[in-house]
Amino acid sequence: MKKKVGIIGATGFVGSELIRLLMKHKEVELSAISSKSFIKSEISDIYGNFKNIVNLVCEDEKFVIDNSDIIFTALPHGFSEQIASLLGKNKILIDIGADFRLNEEDYLNFYGLNFKNVNIHHDAIYCIPELHRNKIFKQKIISNPGCYPTSVSLALAPSIIMGFVKDTSIIIDSKSGVSGAGRESNFGTHFTSCNENLKPYALAGVHRHIPEIEKVLNELSKNKYRITFTPYLIPINRGILSTIYFDLKIDKSEKDVRDYYKKFYENEKFIVILDEGQVAQIKNVTCSNFVHISIHKDERCNRMIIICAIDNMIKGAAGQAIQNMNIRLGFDESEGIDMIPDIF
Amino acid sequence: MKKKVGIIGATGFVGSELIRLLMKHKEVELSAISSKSFIKSEISDIYGNFKNIVNLVCEDEKFVIDNSDIIFTALPHGFSEQIASLLGKNKILIDIGADFRLNEEDYLNFYGLNFKNVNIHHDAIYCIPELHRNKIFKQKIISNPGCYPTSVSLALAPSIIMGFVKDTSIIIDSKSGVSGAGRESNFGTHFTSCNENLKPYALAGVHRHIPEIEKVLNELSKNKYRITFTPYLIPINRGILSTIYFDLKIDKSEKDVRDYYKKFYENEKFIVILDEGQVAQIKNVTCSNFVHISIHKDERCNRMIIICAIDNMIKGAAGQAIQNMNIRLGFDESEGIDMIPDIF
Amino acid sequence: MKKKVGIIGATGFVGSELIRLLMKHKEVELSAISSKSFIKSEISDIYGNFKNIVNLVCEDEKFVIDNSDIIFTALPHGFSEQIASLLGKNKILIDIGADFRLNEEDYLNFYGLNFKNVNIHHDAIYCIPELHRNKIFKQKIISNPGCYPTSVSLALAPSIIMGFVKDTSIIIDSKSGVSGAGRESNFGTHFTSCNENLKPYALAGVHRHIPEIEKVLNELSKNKYRITFTPYLIPINRGILSTIYFDLKIDKSEKDVRDYYKKFYENEKFIVILDEGQVAQIKNVTCSNFVHISIHKDERCNRMIIICAIDNMIKGAAGQAIQNMNIRLGFDESEGIDMIPDIF
Amino acid sequence: MKKKVGIIGATGFVGSELIRLLMKHKEVELSAISSKSFIKSEISDIYGNFKNIVNLVCEDEKFVIDNSDIIFTALPHGFSEQIASLLGKNKILIDIGADFRLNEEDYLNFYGLNFKNVNIHHDAIYCIPELHRNKIFKQKIISNPGCYPTSVSLALAPSIIMGFVKDTSIIIDSKSGVSGAGRESNFGTHFTSCNENLKPYALAGVHRHIPEIEKVLNELSKNKYRITFTPYLIPINRGILSTIYFDLKIDKSEKDVRDYYKKFYENEKFIVILDEGQVAQIKNVTCSNFVHISIHKDERCNRMIIICAIDNMIKGAAGQAIQNMNIRLGFDESEGIDMIPDIF
Repeated sequence: MKKKVGIIGATGFVGSELIRLLMKHKEVELSAISSKSFIKSEISDIYGNFKNIVNLVCEDEKFVIDNSDIIFTALPHGFSEQIASLLGKNKILIDIGADFRLNEEDYLNFYGLNFKNVNIHHDAIYCIPELHRNKIFKQKIISNPGCYPTSVSLALAPSIIMGFVKDTSIIIDSKSGVSGAGRESNFGTHFTSCNENLKPYALAGVHRHIPEIEKVLNELSKNKYRITFTPYLIPINRGILSTIYFDLKIDKSEKDVRDYYKKFYENEKFIVILDEGQVAQIKNVTCSNFVHISIHKDERCNRMIIICAIDNMIKGAAGQAIQNMNIRLGFDESEGIDMIPDIF
Repeated sequence: MKKKVGIIGATGFVGSELIRLLMKHKEVELSAISSKSFIKSEISDIYGNFKNIVNLVCEDEKFVIDNSDIIFTALPHGFSEQIASLLGKNKILIDIGADFRLNEEDYLNFYGLNFKNVNIHHDAIYCIPELHRNKIFKQKIISNPGCYPTSVSLALAPSIIMGFVKDTSIIIDSKSGVSGAGRESNFGTHFTSCNENLKPYALAGVHRHIPEIEKVLNELSKNKYRITFTPYLIPINRGILSTIYFDLKIDKSEKDVRDYYKKFYENEKFIVILDEGQVAQIKNVTCSNFVHISIHKDERCNRMIIICAIDNMIKGAAGQAIQNMNIRLGFDESEGIDMIPDIF
Repeated sequence: MKKKVGIIGATGFVGSELIRLLMKHKEVELSAISSKSFIKSEISDIYGNFKNIVNLVCEDEKFVIDNSDIIFTALPHGFSEQIASLLGKNKILIDIGADFRLNEEDYLNFYGLNFKNVNIHHDAIYCIPELHRNKIFKQKIISNPGCYPTSVSLALAPSIIMGFVKDTSIIIDSKSGVSGAGRESNFGTHFTSCNENLKPYALAGVHRHIPEIEKVLNELSKNKYRITFTPYLIPINRGILSTIYFDLKIDKSEKDVRDYYKKFYENEKFIVILDEGQVAQIKNVTCSNFVHISIHKDERCNRMIIICAIDNMIKGAAGQAIQNMNIRLGFDESEGIDMIPDIF
Repeated sequence: MKKKVGIIGATGFVGSELIRLLMKHKEVELSAISSKSFIKSEISDIYGNFKNIVNLVCEDEKFVIDNSDIIFTALPHGFSEQIASLLGKNKILIDIGADFRLNEEDYLNFYGLNFKNVNIHHDAIYCIPELHRNKIFKQKIISNPGCYPTSVSLALAPSIIMGFVKDTSIIIDSKSGVSGAGRESNFGTHFTSCNENLKPYALAGVHRHIPEIEKVLNELSKNKYRITFTPYLIPINRGILSTIYFDLKIDKSEKDVRDYYKKFYENEKFIVILDEGQVAQIKNVTCSNFVHISIHKDERCNRMIIICAIDNMIKGAAGQAIQNMNIRLGFDESEGIDMIPDIF
């Protein structure tokens, strides 16, 4: 019998992408969804693409918890922790919010909140599958990574692990499609604000994904990297392209580094290390769970440039959450998320 | 054993979309592809989205014919007819070009070419599945409809069949994403030419899809409709929205018409007749084989307005071609093309 | 001494475009602006393009009235009528809202409001300069036309006046950039809602510009035209393209009609009648007060197709308002609005 | 009497933008234009925005030289040097190509060409007005800077001059609208290639603007900076946003640096140093000659981030060329280029 899955926060962009993907997943049945803003609405009245395909009605959170074995939360930070506290035994939570990504100190510094239920954090594990898959055993809560941290961590991990990276030199310039700003309507997401524009935001050390990226890098290296991180909104619907600069601590050629990346990820279905002369670009991963990484060395400056493209809604959110569910439940890891990227 | 399929003209937009879809089709194996422009190139060097997923190399046309049971042609007009003449027994051709869509007179008038092999046209059947499915038996050639004719014919067919439509009153205003203009690079497809613009083209009775639309309508009605058809390029990658105006020949309310459309298409998985107050829009069908049709009556003018949205690359080309293959080969009609539309 | 002009509603899109244009107008000085939402804010904090160029602060409405000889109102309907009632002698109001465009019956039917001060409407004159210029004398209030009505009326006027148009046959399919939806942020103006989409709205006889268009046409012809009007949002910032279909009442060739249009508008600086084989498109008028009109005949259907492109923010709003001010005040009609359209 | 100006290479994007701007310049008359691709064509048949406004016909290069006092060249590299050699006395050349930007060694290394006429380079002066204005005297040739170098040099110059910048630490991440790729149609400029995409190109030390930027920085500092430079195509028509990272060599607060920039540029009409909390974005400079620069310090990493937005077609090309002409000819420096940026 198929496992029952539910989504709390189903009418946000990530929630609705989860619906789309979970409807095609062969091992689970999407049994319940909730939304604070649209309670009792049919999901197909909110997202017309589901018309005649998905007949679910938005219920409240309790309904989802009661009717699901596995619960996805796609909520503003602070809310998943509460949901986690309400789960009975044998239920699994996959949180796509920030509640379980950081230690309490960083969470307080960057999100302004304390943990409300410290104990429950012991049941949670943060997982980018290609880096942390083997940490998943029987945890009740899986903390799904942020979109930017996914693109950056996968692009930096091999270099970090091998000690290629000079300590203070990491600079990340990350560009995201507007879906990354969420469904909320404000002047910043108004069409005329984004279209024919390029907008940096939350730069110079304040973006909330900074401690998450540093946590991943520092756990991999037992080091204390501090990164400069600049995010932008670009006028496209979906996709993130992260360009990562670092100075080489040890002498490596571009080919050395690329070969090592290829080896590091050789068994990973979703990671594509591009060949010499190829450059990662967003459109080659759109609407898929794939990650394209290209490796470049600026010989004049002895500096590496790693470029990483993901679909922020899939590998950066809903798709990776399903990948994590697949691992946790013992399904085929690519079940439900093995779409070929669109050509455009 | 899976049937072998091949694609001639695999590096155009429709050809590459066919690759993407056929790779996931459970009843067939994509065995060979060809391209005049990129012979001996790996397809993933041309379309980076296929990197590490599709390992096919572009061969010549003969290679595709020899290695396939079913051949898709996605070529400029005039070329599929030649391919058809080269097929041996037991091979099936699904042509996404214009060669088999019209009678010779219309083909000459609108495409400037005579048939080169008249006999072979007797082996061909034109098929929009929802309208002509029962005409498919054992034909060797299936002629896949054009993108605009698909959106227009499906939107008009019920009204035409029921005699709602005043003879001279049909006006069609159809807007297409730039993929409809094909992969060829010229100033008309240059980014700065299309972006922040809206361009009508081939208007006032000259577009090649006019005789195809009229043929479909007139076969359904035994009438002689002449249509006004205005196509546009809009600054999006994919999708067609056709707005169709006609005067009512007999008195019908909006609800009458909508109810009839719902009944007419009630068993059609891919056709969605929207409810009162809903309006078809492109993004609700993107990257799917679905067709959204909304029905409106301008009571002040006693005029019907039917709006139809499709993805021009899928229902308007590659997806419908697979739907036709599925029917011809006896597969489940939605195999390989039952994707849920993207939310954006 | 320069005349003082003020803007009430200066932080909407039309208001801010007025600021941009009036700052360069040689006969007037922009002396005061107001905004309900941003009172006491510097305009350059709201629109960063004005940084170091425009140093005005948003005040209240009274401040603008007191400090201006000429007042532009760019407000939601219902508010300009109140402003008009507060003006002292010798002040001139140019209203870019709907308050003075219609008779009371149509205003009630389409906007749901009665006139609050009937007398003041006698002081108002509606003016598309190329059609109504000679009606402007000493009126206190000039009612500036809507964006769609401007594009449609200019495209139809010559045909209407000459009696070319069969009574019940006018169909207008009008596509607008998203700035036409205004600055308000809601899901309909969210980037992801508009981008890669095409959305019809308010179709089938309900759009508020219908009575305005019909009023203009019927005054020109002493006829009772009823139009079908379908507006759309297209994913561009600015511009309107209206495609207008009508059946010919009398036999005219495409050349006859085009020649007549050229003659009709021969002295109009801002109206460009395109030549045979040319088609109006939005990008050729962007950021200008120009109007491009192309004339086409569908010989197969004996139907005319007139295509008209304007910049909705300039000729459709702020530019035309300045053109009207120029006429009313006796300035050169093109002062401040003779920009050459951008190439993209 | 007005000076006569001509444009060689008038049908490229920069050439056509020059036409648009020069038509409104009060001190000069646009007397002749040339184009290899469109000789004897009316410019308004190539760029429909000029219809009824600009009546010039494309002639050959000789015609332009003979009929102009001042000649603008907007040509692929290698051609302006030839034009320069043909000029008679008293003619002035403003070259928007690369021929006079570099010393011969860098020109050979990055453009693959030797100087053909070494002497003529002594008559040329490279000029970003805000940095080099006082070097312009009576030179025959003014070499107009590249688009990226303009945005980068203006953003870095004050820091370079003051010695804020650690030698090896400069990283530049620059995003350009597609007009930067020029009018040539190829798959890289095809709408579907750019739209919904973000594409890095020519990265890791190979872009031709690198030696130009380094030349400017090193002349200002008597240092030997080597930069890492990554350019991208973003899906917008016009605009460049450059994000520049460098490590501080001496301790400076964000406020110190910003104050210094404000002082450095205090008399510059076109340079806007944004205030604390403001971030440069492309849309605030679109269609203008303005430069927006915002100053940020990442305190966690002791690293400065300077963001600079320009319109690549105006300040990055045609506008700055006119600014240089104005200086060289003694006109008001902002004549013809003092447009207020569009709000979108």
